[in-house]
Amino acid sequence: MLLTLLALVGVGVIGASGALAAVRARLDLFGVVVLGMVTALGGGIARDVLLAISPPTSLVDWRNLVVSGGSALAVFWLHPHVARLRKAVLLADAVGLGLFTTASTVTALGHGAPMHTACLIGMIGGIGGGVLRDVLLREIPFVLRKEIYALAALPGAMVVTLGARLALPAGPVSLAGAALICLVRVLALWRHWNAPIAGADR
Amino acid sequence: MLLTLLALVGVGVIGASGALAAVRARLDLFGVVVLGMVTALGGGIARDVLLAISPPTSLVDWRNLVVSGGSALAVFWLHPHVARLRKAVLLADAVGLGLFTTASTVTALGHGAPMHTACLIGMIGGIGGGVLRDVLLREIPFVLRKEIYALAALPGAMVVTLGARLALPAGPVSLAGAALICLVRVLALWRHWNAPIAGADR
Amino acid sequence: MLLTLLALVGVGVIGASGALAAVRARLDLFGVVVLGMVTALGGGIARDVLLAISPPTSLVDWRNLVVSGGSALAVFWLHPHVARLRKAVLLADAVGLGLFTTASTVTALGHGAPMHTACLIGMIGGIGGGVLRDVLLREIPFVLRKEIYALAALPGAMVVTLGARLALPAGPVSLAGAALICLVRVLALWRHWNAPIAGADR
Repeated sequence: MLLTLLALVGVGVIGASGALAAVRARLDLFGVVVLGMVTALGGGIARDVLLAISPPTSLVDWRNLVVSGGSALAVFWLHPHVARLRKAVLLADAVGLGLFTTASTVTALGHGAPMHTACLIGMIGGIGGGVLRDVLLREIPFVLRKEIYALAALPGAMVVTLGARLALPAGPVSLAGAALICLVRVLALWRHWNAPIAGADR
Repeated sequence: MLLTLLALVGVGVIGASGALAAVRARLDLFGVVVLGMVTALGGGIARDVLLAISPPTSLVDWRNLVVSGGSALAVFWLHPHVARLRKAVLLADAVGLGLFTTASTVTALGHGAPMHTACLIGMIGGIGGGVLRDVLLREIPFVLRKEIYALAALPGAMVVTLGARLALPAGPVSLAGAALICLVRVLALWRHWNAPIAGADR
Repeated sequence: MLLTLLALVGVGVIGASGALAAVRARLDLFGVVVLGMVTALGGGIARDVLLAISPPTSLVDWRNLVVSGGSALAVFWLHPHVARLRKAVLLADAVGLGLFTTASTVTALGHGAPMHTACLIGMIGGIGGGVLRDVLLREIPFVLRKEIYALAALPGAMVVTLGARLALPAGPVSLAGAALICLVRVLALWRHWNAPIAGADR
């Protein structure tokens, strides 16, 4: 099915981004694979923990494990080439953000979360892996500092919850939500949209 | 109800303290709001995850979200004034610690946790948000380093569990526990009580 | 029972290792005790959260709390002597890794996790406490950087899941798995086995 396939692509791409960060932090082979898997699966695990889905889907579905681990392994050996594809990596990451967010929002709604809670859990599912990656690498999470990132996830999560409220078919609505997130994120990168920072007058 | 109102005040105050830390770390508007909400709601979310309450109450009750987010927004624009109210912020933080700890202890007891477990989960509910704030800002958590903080939460949690054991009414006992925590914390600040540090003879 | 006793020894030893790290980071008495308890119990709590076991066993069984807290207190006063026992600490840590991993794998299997998920949750139970310790002390987690550590946990987790598949008795199989983990870890320390690091050609 298309959505499943797209989700696996997202897992692979986000896993690669985590592995690339781990290579740059000089982690060893095992650390690179773990960080790739944590980045790819961490958001989904956080979502499942918040929804008390046990054991977490991301740890049960072996395709997620194989794709994220394999993608991290590939980055370990090919990282100079991957690093050169900077724009492609950023684009793929935007696709992953869109897919993860809408999938998590759908899951939260399906487990009885109210609309605003489903949006929040959707955003956590979308950005959670990246936050874990940054905390493990001892960085202040990227999503809190630069460019519109997590904020880009919000409109997509809202599209999905509104679609569910109006009883529209989940598949096309999810795709539309993911596309919207991806579009906002790419525009933010392209136009250098940043959220404002408070003045230094203290 | 008084306890609910007080809890919302706690959410607002702790959210402001998280937002203030985020402004100082030069996070952008979105990061400030997220960090305020994480600080205000993180302890409650940790408590709910440990008790398998799903979805977490803090993400369902929209009043928590509005108050913590609004408080963080206000700090973003007014932070020079907030920073000047240093003593008021510390006092309000002590009130928040007391309210969060006793509320979490009551919740844990209500979900069948034994007394010592309820005390621990109460303390986690009280200090969890501050720990998350510090980890996200790449600091060694404040509660592990300076002045009596988490330790101040313990007597209040014990008052609540003892009160429940003696079947005393939960409302007044919670208020007494929260007041005790607040008192110990303010005394620790005023008298510069610190836990000892191990000698450097290594 | 032997396994329970061994698990308590593991809790004490891992708690001591966390406390030692906290003393070195100049945390105060309370911070040392908390960090010892987090290191000793964090992996088990993560496992219980992933399996929706509530409240987490590690927070309910008071023996875990007493042993880990007491061990951390002892380190606070005796740390110059403990630090001198470097090899004994490393050996004891290897024993703890083995016991925690196999116990968590058994628990995951008992809660219906498939084999590969049980292995992953077993490893998380084995290394989770150490990861939390490092994150709280603002270090990139040790297990991602140096020597074969988490990787040593994998064969033991696999022995336990295979043993369960073949319906072998859980006690002896767990002991064999723990011994295998301990052996691999000690060999890695002794022979300075490290996983490779990606080339710097970027």
